[in-house]
Amino acid sequence: MMRAVDLPQITIVGVGLLGGSLGMASRKLRLARRVVGYVRKPEQAAQCLAAGAVDEATCDLAQAARGASLVILCTPVGQMRPLAEQLRPHLRPDAIVTDVGSVKGVVVAELESLFPRFVGSHPMAGSEKTGVAHARADLFEGAVCALTPTAATDTAALAAVESLWRALGARPVRISPAAHDQLVARSSHLPHALSTALVHTVLGNMANGQADFCATGFRDATRLADGSAAMWRDITLANREPLTRALDDLSGHLARLRQALEAADAAALEDYFERGRQLRSHWLRREI
Amino acid sequence: MMRAVDLPQITIVGVGLLGGSLGMASRKLRLARRVVGYVRKPEQAAQCLAAGAVDEATCDLAQAARGASLVILCTPVGQMRPLAEQLRPHLRPDAIVTDVGSVKGVVVAELESLFPRFVGSHPMAGSEKTGVAHARADLFEGAVCALTPTAATDTAALAAVESLWRALGARPVRISPAAHDQLVARSSHLPHALSTALVHTVLGNMANGQADFCATGFRDATRLADGSAAMWRDITLANREPLTRALDDLSGHLARLRQALEAADAAALEDYFERGRQLRSHWLRREI
Repeated sequence: MMRAVDLPQITIVGVGLLGGSLGMASRKLRLARRVVGYVRKPEQAAQCLAAGAVDEATCDLAQAARGASLVILCTPVGQMRPLAEQLRPHLRPDAIVTDVGSVKGVVVAELESLFPRFVGSHPMAGSEKTGVAHARADLFEGAVCALTPTAATDTAALAAVESLWRALGARPVRISPAAHDQLVARSSHLPHALSTALVHTVLGNMANGQADFCATGFRDATRLADGSAAMWRDITLANREPLTRALDDLSGHLARLRQALEAADAAALEDYFERGRQLRSHWLRREI
Repeated sequence: MMRAVDLPQITIVGVGLLGGSLGMASRKLRLARRVVGYVRKPEQAAQCLAAGAVDEATCDLAQAARGASLVILCTPVGQMRPLAEQLRPHLRPDAIVTDVGSVKGVVVAELESLFPRFVGSHPMAGSEKTGVAHARADLFEGAVCALTPTAATDTAALAAVESLWRALGARPVRISPAAHDQLVARSSHLPHALSTALVHTVLGNMANGQADFCATGFRDATRLADGSAAMWRDITLANREPLTRALDDLSGHLARLRQALEAADAAALEDYFERGRQLRSHWLRREI
């Protein structure tokens, strides 16, 4: 039987939740003859070997690069450029390079100038949990995966990366880096920013007894605020303008609510909640 | 063995998620010799009998009131006053009355003028799901339950209602109606309002492809928006001022974030996310 994807070596740079899950799935599905992981610290190498995320783990970037036919950059967005620059001299010139960064505009511009066969990816999977301990082979099953080709993208490399994501169970969607960044600013970065603002409002300078009156609704509405601060600093820095526009739109909706409250406008309040409920319900049923 | 609570008859007005759960738990723990439920429609009477939420269900408020030693009002906040007025002529003068409304200032003022032995309650339990189909006997176990006595409150009635909640597994906390409303405006009403604003921002007037880029983070951050619009219209109307102040505080935190984004201030962004993560983590571990 021919496998859809059959690579000599996949190298994963950064073996955390996403990198670890990619390694586990690639090994389980035998998408490569060898999966090599690059990590920063020797104890991480032991962890990702123990988790079954890679066949080989190393803290030596040159060694990880050697023999790689496909490299997947899975570090936080802010670390990609410096690592890519160190990686490049050790890589075969025909190696395909992709990444899983949450922001594509800045990342794609930086990385496609360094690698002739670079293709930007962003799987819409993950969690506020980080680290290889939370990795799982089925993380990408059923998830949308953005692929962000540009005019400079090698079409064979794009097809290969698309096949990889499809083999992992994801649904590839081609979109420009800029359009991608606009969409995730709203669906992903805005919820994170809001979740954190809610924590500050409720738990910062708390009134007496406030903690007693925070129940499961509050806990769930602030779950995203548990993510890594350094990661979210980098993501929001890299997607400043679309996120700022999303924040302004949200402020408009909150101002509308505030106005209805001031006017004690029962019909406007009911409409605000009812229309929100319906929009979400249609989305859950995928009618929009 | 003496039971902590042993009432001749508990009457539950409105047998939905909260009323149904109260009925199930009261029957299971034998807190009353009889649990009677008042519902609006005959098919609801059949449903709450089938669910085991009450011993007897009726659409006749006078009949439900007859013989009640304790009445628990479990309807949406906006329906409490008219129902209470219809209920009063049929009630024994020594009957204790409580409610489970999410707002206490307006509700307590209205109800304590109607019933000499009224005590306001608000169990911090529930869900965006509604209806007796989602009721469960253990809903209140471990939940904080606000009790909101005023200068007019009968102390024996307060002690009886407190014993009831304790018997149901809840942790009673005494607090003034006004202080209660300030706290829940932040911990409960604000998350609901925000969750709905997020839905409007992301799913209203959507860009092409937006729905594809909404994943589990967005789904969970908007879960609260699935609540009943009529219920939330009433709650937000009844708690206008505290909620407006909470919205203004939240807007202040979002403005701070926006400023850090505009200035590309990496340190301020990291601090915003890191401090939020820590505040929530301390709250989860109950260190604050």
